[in-house]
This record gives sequence, C-alpha cells and structure tokens, in this order.
Amino acid sequence: MTEPAIVLGANQYGKAEVRVVKLTRDTARHEIDDLNVTSQLRGDFTAAHLAGENAHVVPTDTQKNTIFAFARDGIGALEAFLLRLADHFTGSFEWVSGGRWEAERFDWERIRTGSAEHDHGFVRSGREVRTALVVADGDERHVLGGLRGLTVLKSTDSGFVGYPKDRYTTLPETTDRILATEVTARWRYGVGRADVDYDRTYSSVRGVLLEAFADGYSPGLQATLFEMGSRVLEHHSEIAEIRFSMPNKHHFLVDLSPFGLDNPNEVFFAADRPYGLIEAAVVREGDATPAAAWDGVAGFC
Amino acid sequence: MTEPAIVLGANQYGKAEVRVVKLTRDTARHEIDDLNVTSQLRGDFTAAHLAGENAHVVPTDTQKNTIFAFARDGIGALEAFLLRLADHFTGSFEWVSGGRWEAERFDWERIRTGSAEHDHGFVRSGREVRTALVVADGDERHVLGGLRGLTVLKSTDSGFVGYPKDRYTTLPETTDRILATEVTARWRYGVGRADVDYDRTYSSVRGVLLEAFADGYSPGLQATLFEMGSRVLEHHSEIAEIRFSMPNKHHFLVDLSPFGLDNPNEVFFAADRPYGLIEAAVVREGDATPAAAWDGVAGFC
Amino acid sequence: MTEPAIVLGANQYGKAEVRVVKLTRDTARHEIDDLNVTSQLRGDFTAAHLAGENAHVVPTDTQKNTIFAFARDGIGALEAFLLRLADHFTGSFEWVSGGRWEAERFDWERIRTGSAEHDHGFVRSGREVRTALVVADGDERHVLGGLRGLTVLKSTDSGFVGYPKDRYTTLPETTDRILATEVTARWRYGVGRADVDYDRTYSSVRGVLLEAFADGYSPGLQATLFEMGSRVLEHHSEIAEIRFSMPNKHHFLVDLSPFGLDNPNEVFFAADRPYGLIEAAVVREGDATPAAAWDGVAGFC
Amino acid sequence: MTEPAIVLGANQYGKAEVRVVKLTRDTARHEIDDLNVTSQLRGDFTAAHLAGENAHVVPTDTQKNTIFAFARDGIGALEAFLLRLADHFTGSFEWVSGGRWEAERFDWERIRTGSAEHDHGFVRSGREVRTALVVADGDERHVLGGLRGLTVLKSTDSGFVGYPKDRYTTLPETTDRILATEVTARWRYGVGRADVDYDRTYSSVRGVLLEAFADGYSPGLQATLFEMGSRVLEHHSEIAEIRFSMPNKHHFLVDLSPFGLDNPNEVFFAADRPYGLIEAAVVREGDATPAAAWDGVAGFC
Repeated sequence: MTEPAIVLGANQYGKAEVRVVKLTRDTARHEIDDLNVTSQLRGDFTAAHLAGENAHVVPTDTQKNTIFAFARDGIGALEAFLLRLADHFTGSFEWVSGGRWEAERFDWERIRTGSAEHDHGFVRSGREVRTALVVADGDERHVLGGLRGLTVLKSTDSGFVGYPKDRYTTLPETTDRILATEVTARWRYGVGRADVDYDRTYSSVRGVLLEAFADGYSPGLQATLFEMGSRVLEHHSEIAEIRFSMPNKHHFLVDLSPFGLDNPNEVFFAADRPYGLIEAAVVREGDATPAAAWDGVAGFC
Repeated sequence: MTEPAIVLGANQYGKAEVRVVKLTRDTARHEIDDLNVTSQLRGDFTAAHLAGENAHVVPTDTQKNTIFAFARDGIGALEAFLLRLADHFTGSFEWVSGGRWEAERFDWERIRTGSAEHDHGFVRSGREVRTALVVADGDERHVLGGLRGLTVLKSTDSGFVGYPKDRYTTLPETTDRILATEVTARWRYGVGRADVDYDRTYSSVRGVLLEAFADGYSPGLQATLFEMGSRVLEHHSEIAEIRFSMPNKHHFLVDLSPFGLDNPNEVFFAADRPYGLIEAAVVREGDATPAAAWDGVAGFC
Repeated sequence: MTEPAIVLGANQYGKAEVRVVKLTRDTARHEIDDLNVTSQLRGDFTAAHLAGENAHVVPTDTQKNTIFAFARDGIGALEAFLLRLADHFTGSFEWVSGGRWEAERFDWERIRTGSAEHDHGFVRSGREVRTALVVADGDERHVLGGLRGLTVLKSTDSGFVGYPKDRYTTLPETTDRILATEVTARWRYGVGRADVDYDRTYSSVRGVLLEAFADGYSPGLQATLFEMGSRVLEHHSEIAEIRFSMPNKHHFLVDLSPFGLDNPNEVFFAADRPYGLIEAAVVREGDATPAAAWDGVAGFC
Repeated sequence: MTEPAIVLGANQYGKAEVRVVKLTRDTARHEIDDLNVTSQLRGDFTAAHLAGENAHVVPTDTQKNTIFAFARDGIGALEAFLLRLADHFTGSFEWVSGGRWEAERFDWERIRTGSAEHDHGFVRSGREVRTALVVADGDERHVLGGLRGLTVLKSTDSGFVGYPKDRYTTLPETTDRILATEVTARWRYGVGRADVDYDRTYSSVRGVLLEAFADGYSPGLQATLFEMGSRVLEHHSEIAEIRFSMPNKHHFLVDLSPFGLDNPNEVFFAADRPYGLIEAAVVREGDATPAAAWDGVAGFC
C-alpha cells in the first residue's frame, strides 16, 4: 500500500505586533491612538511551502509598511481600521482569499494641570486593553470586538455550594467568599451590520459587564459569566455572540487562629497558580456560529 | 417578531496550571518529574450557567486534588498521564462527555560532581518545554505531543527573493541573512495508536526538527517549516499531522558605514517587535483533521 | 603568606512578595487593601551561614505569618504598616538589628452601577503601583514612598539639540518629538517626620510629577526629570530627597515617503529595546544622604 | 531661615538593553555571540539637568552606535568587551569620569546532525544567563562576573531545624525536604588582575557552584549559600568577593491522606509566591569592599 502524500494543511502568515502610535495634531489639542496590530494572510501559498517559490508571498515587511501607511489617514474605530486592511489585502492580491487582522488598543488619559486637561500631555490609563479582530473568508467579514485585562472583584455576595462530592473532594462549601477574575471577552457582530458604532458599543459593553459582575449574589463563576454575557446580548442586538475566558483568581482566607486572632472574612492570601478557568460562549438560539470567525483565536476567545 | 432566546454555547472549565513536582525515590538515585497541568471538563453544565445550580460542577479544586493523587502513582509519559486523567473524569461523572487535559514538562539534568552524575542534585536544563494535550470527545481520544520555546538560528544558508512588489514594498532581496525562530509545534497521533512510545517519539521529533531546520538552503521560513513538518511525518507513521507557529525573529544588519566600517554580515541588531509569524499544518493527504482535536488550542497550534 | 580567612559580608533574608488582600467590612460599604509585601531581616546571622546553626533564623514562614497577623488590625498607610513590622521584628529578637520592609499597593476603583458606586464590587484601576520601603538601621528608620509604572507621554513641546557629536553620532537634532517615559520614583522622608500624612503626600506628589512632566518645553529628559524632582521638593518640605529611574521610551517617526505620503509628526513606531535610561537623585543642598536608606534598593531607585 | 537649595545628586544615564548579535564568519564554522548590553555614563551632567544645556550629553543613541561599532572588532570575553567600552567613553569625553557597563550573554549550542556538529545551525541552550558588569570610577575599574537563572534543586539531604519559635511560628521542623533556588550571583575580581581568563573562570565558578549546592547535607539555605561562596573564593584567588541573591523556591508536600494515600516525600506543589529570599556576600577578611563596585547594582547583587 502506498503511503498517502504529505501535503500542506491550513496556513496563515504575516507580521505580528506592529506598535503604531498615531497622533492627530490638527489643532493644539492633540489626540493619540496607541495600537498593537497583527496582520495575517490566508490563500494560495502552496508554492512557497512546497517549492520555496515566493511569487505569492506578500512580505511581512510589506504588511507592516501598509499598516503604517494606512495609519496616516487616521485610525478611527479599531474594527473599522482592521476592515480597511482586510479589504486592501484581499483586494490587491488575487491569491489572498482571506486572513485575520487583530489589534490591541492602549488607553491614555489627559494629564490634568489644575482644573484643566492638558492639550498634549498624557498618562497611560492602565485600564483593560481593548481588542478587535477581523477575519476575512472570501467575501465574508467577521468582526469581533473585545477586551482583556479587566480585573474585577466582589468582596461578598458570592458563594459556592451544592457541587458533587467524590473521593477527591476536600473543598468546603461557602456562602461568603471573594470572587475575582480577569475578564477576557470577545463579542462577534452580526454579519452585515455595517452601521455599528464600534466605539460606543465598546464603552457600553464594558459598562454592562461591570454592572452584571457586581450585581446580586453569585452562586458560581459560571452563573456570573452567563449573566454577564446574556445582559450584553439583551442590550446589544448588533452582537450575535460573546465568549469569555475567566480565571477564578483564588483568594484564600488565612487561618489566624494559631495567633489567637479571628478572621471574619477580612484577611486573604491572593494566590497565583493554580487558578480556576471558566470559559463559555453565550449565543442567540439558532444562530449558526461561523467557525471561521473563531479559527486561530488564541485560547477559547 | 420575537427575539431568539439567549442560550449557552460551547463551554469548558477546570483548573489551570497545577504545578506538580513528583519525585521517584525508590533507590538512592532519584528521578524528578516537573509538570504544569491543566484540566478542563466539557459536558452538560447548563444548569450551572443558567440557574446557578452546581450539582454537575465537579469543583476545580477537586480536579486539582485528582491531579496530585494521580501523580502519587507516577507520571510516566506526559501523554499517558493525561489519558488517565481523561478516562477518570469522563468515566466518573456521566454528564462529563469530554474535556481537554494539557501539560508542560520542565527538563532537569543531573548535576555533575567530578566525573559522576549526582543522585539527587539537579539543574534545570532551560531547554524547550515539552507539551502534551489530550482532547476527549465522547469515546474518542485525540493525543497531541508538542514543544514550545525551541529557539533556533542559522547564520547563513538563508535568503528571501522573488516575492511580489507593490506600492508598500521596501524590503530588499537577500540571499544571505540570519534566519531565527522560536518553534512552537504540536503533532497529533493517529487515532487508535495505543502502542506509541511517546517519550521516544518526542526525542526523535525534536532531533528531526533541528536537523531539518539546519540542513540546506532556506528560501523562506514557509519552505523551512514545511520541510520540518514533512520530515517528521516521513519518519513517524504514528503521527497524522503536525502544526507549527513560528515567529520570524528578525536580525537586522547594522549599517556601520557612517563609522567607516564595513559589515560583511557580522553585526546584527536582534529586534523584539514586530516579528514575522508563520503558521501552518503539515498533513497526510486525505486525512480528515478532527476539529475537536484543535478546538480550544491556544493560537494556531 | 597566609591567605586571609573567608568570612560573611553584608547579608539579609526574609520572605518576598506576600500577597495580602485585606477587606474592611465594618459597614456595607467595604474597603479593599491589595498589597505585595516583602520582609527582610538584618543582624547577627553568622552562625547560620558558617555553622548551619539556625537559633537566630526567624523563619521566613514566620515573617509571612506576621504580615498576615498584622494585617488583621488594618493596613492604614503603606509606610505606617511597614514601620509597625520593622518595630516588631527589631523589638522582638535582640539579634535583629535592622532590616528592610517593602510593599506595593494595587489600586482598585468601585464599579459604578448607574449613577451609584457599588458597595462591594471593584475593578482594578491599572494605574501606576504605589510603593513603600522602610529601612531599619539600629534605631534609625528611613521611610521611602514611591511609585512605579507611571507611563506618561507628551506629543510635542519636546526636543533634543546641542549635544556633542563624535565619530559615532548619527542622531539628527530635533525640536519636535514625542517624549515618553515610565516613571519609577522613590522619595525619602526626612528623619523624625512622624507627623507625615503618607497617603495625602502620595496623592500630591503624583499630581506634581504629572504637571511638571506636561508643563513647558522639554530640552531633554534630564531637564524634565530635574524639574519633576525639584517641584516635589519645593512643595513637600517633609521630603528630603527623590530619585528617579526613567527610561526614554523611543517613538521613531516612520518614513512614509516611499509610499508617496508625508508624515508631519503623526505616525510613529513605538520601540521596545534598546531604550534610553535616565537616572538621578534630586536632593536638598547639604543633606547627608544616608547610604543605608538606599542599600539594597533594586536598581537606582 | 532660608531653605537649602535644591540640587542634583547622584546620576547616570545611557542606553539600556542593546541586543547585539555578532557572527564570526572567518571560516565555514561560524561562531555566534548573542548579547544584551547596557551603557551608562557618570560625570558632570549638571547643566543638562538644571539648565537643559546638552553640550555634555553624549546621546544615548551614540552610545548604542558605539556598542555596535565595537562589536565589529569582535566581542571576546564579556568583561573585556565592557572594559573597552569603559575606556572609550571615559577617554573620549573629559567630563565623563566614570560609568557602568553591563551585559548579558545568551548561550547557543550547535545543532547536531547525525554525529556531526553543524557549522552554522544553532539552538539556544536555555541555560543560565552569564552576566558581566564593569564600573569605572575615575581610573579605577571594578570588574564583576556573574550569572542569573541557574535553577537548582536537591530532592533530599536538606532540612531546617533549631530555629526560634514565637507567637507567629507554625512551620514544622523537617530533616528531609526539597531545596530549590534560582541562583543570581556576581563575583568581583580583585583590582589589578588584568591577567584573568574570564571565560575559563566563568566556567569553573559555575561548576563549583553546582557541586557545592549538590554536595552534603544542607541545614538551611544560608549555610548552602556560604558554602557555595567560600568554595568559589577558595578555588579562585583572582576573585575578591561573591554575592548571592537566592530565592527559596518552596515545594510543599501535598497532603494525600484525605484520598487514602500516603506521601513519603514524593508529591509536591511548587509554589510561585511568596518565596524565601536569602542574600549575602562572601568576602575575604580585611578586604575593603569598594562601594562604587556595587552602586547601582539591581537588588543585592
């Protein structure tokens, strides 16, 4: 029997982590866009892999140059910037049938001097990082907004009871614990929603996530995750789906009794590893999740 | 028209990065297994998400305990250890229909004192990290070996020419450059290959990857990647597929002419970001890649 | 000639990076203190080093326990918490003649729900990290406040001209560039200033640093550093000295002319490495900087 | 009473983390030097700080260029390369009275193909990083070799007993535990030892450190540290002093008894934080440690 041939499977390539800072200096009051952009192309690159023929290989250096050149015209919403890149690359090279374009955006605040905001002095906010992802698959465009590094904690109104016990279970039940997580989320915009105000939606989603996390009693991080996701879908008809990766950042109550002290849920040890890891998608019933939209996404979301 | 209901989509949860160190002390010559293990369950967890009912939620703490308890019986091959965990969880809880179990292994060498290897003194090798991943999907088991952090460089016999030029291209062609990358790879074992010696295969694959990288002239990182992958498949019939994520770690020739010096490919600046990123699967023709095997894998591989 | 004996030199030991989270739950409106504390003892530990006799070695585990126990009584100002630890250890063990106690504090903001601040829901601010250091040297106490990770940028009003040129100089002069740095600073409180409101001073110093960075034209990062430091000393008589470690985070103007585009200081590449590194102390004339205060400080400040 | 003037204190500046890769291609068998170099100048820089006059400010960009240009002539021993930089900067600019030059060196091994070592294919070893530091103070040169990231572990022959117990002590005594640390060390060469073979000494010191760590019973990390240091001084008369910063990387025995299992020192949890931190200098009696040599050293060593 002949062995089957060895062939090229799925593939993509490009330039990762292009750190672009774009100033807008039209007036004395400057604006700043601080981005980390990754561009990856998909299409017919078989000859490059099998024969070392690079006639189809748009250099990653060219992809980087294009990102800088496109920034000259302004960034606008992160998602819109990536859509322009997607259209350029798929429109300029016939063998490029798709790709993925990803960006992070770092947030800056104006420095205040006295009661005034400074025109051109900024301090990095350190808040969560906004993310965006555009996947092009032929003529289709999947647009995903997102964030990472949104670290939240509730100091009460959280518990965990009613779970199955087996030979390996030692965890005691509790109805009052610290619940803390660092939210990574991506939400997929419905196809054909060209009218979306991505910046406004981002700001709204962030607020909804924070409120849903803080509100009410949490019987478990899974329930909190679903509450966060479903509220986002309720408020935003333009969003078809949202996915989360949420570590359970454990805070262990310290036993102070050897020192003659009580500890009424006041002193905790914040552990690094291991951590719980809760991941889920919240979707609209009947919605066909396009596999391409999530293909190549780092981790679960 | 009624809005469609908001429902739970794909989900998984567990305990991540359990740092287990297992000593074998049967004789004076100790052995050490140093692991970082992640366990995630899939199945019917709808009630936990929608109603906060945890009757199905095997605690992540229990998953951690189980990992430690199973380590008591010895680790063996990384992949085999994960298979035992997979069988335990899917076999013990009827609503657990699958999951993913992942591990990293850190390599230690014996300290040498004079001409002898020490019995219980070790130094961490710092070599690449070996990885393993088992995905259970009902009765199916997908087993993936892998590595990350294998950083390689060739100081000549590498070039990049013949690529398309457009308005944004400034990269000059070259037939002599440094080629450097940090290999992340995962290879999928064919289903039903229970007889595999995972440790021996790991060692062999590592050697094949290094040889294929070093050998011959590289016309581009894509061609080198495919050569590495195809050689692995040629040597290892038990492997169905191999995937790579390989950054092109750029080394830029420094222009020393302002200082009256030539630079015949000797002095380079090693850049951090941006970097090229080349990702591809090398497969056997006709092989049906099981989506579940790669679902939830961080990045491309 | 006899070789001189080999003896123990300077030494210290303790527990590093104790991650304490202290809640205050006296009312429904909770407070959170999120700290990373390091305790190190100095004194007579010769027998432990030379003879393996541990009679003087207060275990690092005990130091950790003490930090948790002291947290039970509340944290208060970071500096005051460290002073209590210093007094405890030097007062409890006669052979402990001094030591250093260091802390970082992570800042949380209350989640807003509608127009209200939540009672027990928090989001990590991500702002700079506040630091504190207490060095005990016999009866002396050196108290240092500080911060790290205060990343600032001015998009104009910065230049660099008039520097010496030699054979290796290729940098062009400029009177309009981006100036960006990530401020690490430590300020030493004058000895015997027991009445200091450390929290209020921290907040004020932060504001002064931001204003001084943003104000006016910067002829170089050295001049900006000195302006920042001297303003702090002018506003705060309780501070004897301030030290800075400030990387010059380079933003390089991208040459867009190959693409037929101009670039009037709008599109920049933000580089990782190398970076400039400017470090200096700003002091009061005649002040004798106590070496002990800075001994063992990581880097310049 | 007049306030004392605000003046400039200690200061230094330069370019940090210049990533130089130097190939030697004289024959078909290439050599590679992979370095991370930092250059900082000290001297009269008052006008730059107080008046924004940069006539003395040798640009950090020029310092970077000089590093690349000097690499053209070959690196040689790390310490010798830094001494050449020190002599250049202090000799070229009369107001530069000293400075500090620091480097890290990353180790590469040749890829083996069959039984042969490859001529120009390399794999990064991942071993500890070699470090070097030269401090120039007028005509004096302090030369320090070193390493970081040498992670070692002994699986028995280590205990901790006989320590003082107080109210906050809960640690049980043990005569069999895992001892693990990640060694950072710097050793200072005696002044005027121009004949030192730095590369050979590095290799020898590394071997001595490993042997001293592994040999015999450790009654505590302090005793082990001193044994390591004193052996280095015994074997190397050219070394005047050695300093260590050694975290005690805790491995906690897991209690498996709830699962009906014993645990005879076989299964451990490797903790991240907190960790013990043991720091000390081992010196020759009567040797006057020059403060300048350690000034500005990150941490204790």
